[in-house]
Amino acid sequence: MDDFELFGNIQKAEKFVEAIKDRKFLFSFVISYTETSEIPGITFAGADKESIKFTPPADAEYLYYGNCKTIDKIPMTPDGKPTPALLTKVALESSSIPHIVVNAGSKISPQLPFIQTGLSPGKNISINPAMTDSQISQAVDYGRIVGRTLASMTDCLIIGESIPGGTTTALAVMQGLGYKARVSSSIPDNPVILKNQIASMALEGLNSDNPYSIVAKVGDPMIPFVTGMLSAASAINPVMLAGGTQMAAVLAFASKIGFNEDNTAIATTSYITNDDSANFKSLVSEIADIPAMAVNPRLEKSTFPGLRAFSEGFAKEGVGAGGSIIASIIKTRNDQSKFLELAEKEYQRIFTSL
Amino acid sequence: MDDFELFGNIQKAEKFVEAIKDRKFLFSFVISYTETSEIPGITFAGADKESIKFTPPADAEYLYYGNCKTIDKIPMTPDGKPTPALLTKVALESSSIPHIVVNAGSKISPQLPFIQTGLSPGKNISINPAMTDSQISQAVDYGRIVGRTLASMTDCLIIGESIPGGTTTALAVMQGLGYKARVSSSIPDNPVILKNQIASMALEGLNSDNPYSIVAKVGDPMIPFVTGMLSAASAINPVMLAGGTQMAAVLAFASKIGFNEDNTAIATTSYITNDDSANFKSLVSEIADIPAMAVNPRLEKSTFPGLRAFSEGFAKEGVGAGGSIIASIIKTRNDQSKFLELAEKEYQRIFTSL
Repeated sequence: MDDFELFGNIQKAEKFVEAIKDRKFLFSFVISYTETSEIPGITFAGADKESIKFTPPADAEYLYYGNCKTIDKIPMTPDGKPTPALLTKVALESSSIPHIVVNAGSKISPQLPFIQTGLSPGKNISINPAMTDSQISQAVDYGRIVGRTLASMTDCLIIGESIPGGTTTALAVMQGLGYKARVSSSIPDNPVILKNQIASMALEGLNSDNPYSIVAKVGDPMIPFVTGMLSAASAINPVMLAGGTQMAAVLAFASKIGFNEDNTAIATTSYITNDDSANFKSLVSEIADIPAMAVNPRLEKSTFPGLRAFSEGFAKEGVGAGGSIIASIIKTRNDQSKFLELAEKEYQRIFTSL
Repeated sequence: MDDFELFGNIQKAEKFVEAIKDRKFLFSFVISYTETSEIPGITFAGADKESIKFTPPADAEYLYYGNCKTIDKIPMTPDGKPTPALLTKVALESSSIPHIVVNAGSKISPQLPFIQTGLSPGKNISINPAMTDSQISQAVDYGRIVGRTLASMTDCLIIGESIPGGTTTALAVMQGLGYKARVSSSIPDNPVILKNQIASMALEGLNSDNPYSIVAKVGDPMIPFVTGMLSAASAINPVMLAGGTQMAAVLAFASKIGFNEDNTAIATTSYITNDDSANFKSLVSEIADIPAMAVNPRLEKSTFPGLRAFSEGFAKEGVGAGGSIIASIIKTRNDQSKFLELAEKEYQRIFTSL
């Protein structure tokens, strides 16, 4: 298998890939929000501080329409590097994988039809508990309903997410649940110290080892919601968690509340697995005995600096980009050179249509 | 084919049934609202006037949870006859057909995850235009997005609806579009005169033969939304419009804006097709050259008066009951005696758990 690397439980990974070959995929895109993203320096998922909250709905709009409604341009970093949704869009469209948007606590609703849950955004974990106990139960319960519904409509449910600041809450959740997690980030100079400080502040005074209480105090709405989705969906059909650190946190919580390990894989980009500031591979193996996959999209070969930037550590993952590319490879048997060609075409379309 | 009757284009109907045998079904339940339902005497879809607006979300909750969150009891007529959602629920569960709720203008949101569109409820057509031109364009556009998304997740998309007062707006739309429609109702003494008066009042001063303008003036949000769904979904996969008069109105609008006739069927109960106050069979044939189907759920054989009532003309159809039963028969090969047994069990569960 040259196209993507298998790790975690490799035997299970081979079985997983075999099971979903020639089957139907559905990509669900869960958007959410944590006020933790408002801490200066914690995320670059947006052109400036004010625009961070628009990034998740704008990513959703871009996937549907090819442009955004909530903001003028597609989401990008302050210096103009595009959202990883570009990679997701190209992967899904080139392989005709349908997708659906789920709003699980986004501050702003996208201007398109989406699955509404009514969940609230999470609080800034450095100051407040992220959620109340009843909010977290509802997030898990609603996640279960959505997971069951979507899994029964497809042969393989892919779950991606967009929650700015989410690596910090993910770090806090994993540490709170007892894993020695280090995290990846959308910034090459990963503000590891800041993130660890925030996580430590959030974990201070935690006086319970109940996983629900831990996630309620230091997590975000995406984590319990996607955990509920995974828990119910993996009972029915194969599920691919498409993401890096955030999905590792989902896996950590899921391993406490229960899910089907034989029906679950985590899939991301090699930009995450090769990130020395994080310990993604060993972390996944520590959390659960499941298949894991990483794809190298070979964006370093691009003629466009905005695409090469992904390979240089900017926005290494997000919007389920890695999992979407892997699903598209499994479905179409296209290789990464075809993907690069299509990504460059889309990049050109975006930047000439602006 | 003893289990349900084919009409409309029978050759196409046989082909349609053959095409969806042994395939995956998805039931989409579109809830909406028109203030036309507030006209006294126009609908009995609710225990009293105040509860009418809760009927669509409560139907949705009942389908998911087996009980309601928005109101205490499941929706019923003033004298305690249950919602046709009972029939839909039994049909879908007995055949493991997944479902998803779409809010296309309901006044109240259901307490469960659902596809949100942001569409507004329709105005009372006896006083005001139902919708603005931009609202109707958005309803069709959003319907197209949802229809395309859902159709690509399944082999056969079933569309049901719940919009109290919807037969009156359906009547007005069909008359406005030039069809000699008569309508069915949830009440045995169908208030035909009142409905025709309302439709005439709404159609007064109509100064355009543009189908969009006609539906905007005298319709409701469900009609353009489901028409958009049908238009996009039928381009991809077979679509079953599950309903009576309201779905005939969708068909009427769709025949103006375009849809794939070879991929579309309308399916309902025999309580609709045998209703002498309506002209459902001839109306369908007049509107479009498509397959049509009607099932007799044999509820007159029930030991429970609340179930027999359906066969006596109360709530003859709704929540896509007829189409759901037909889909469950096609999928499971169960016959109506099995269906009656399950419906009686569910009826008992509801009325002993109250």
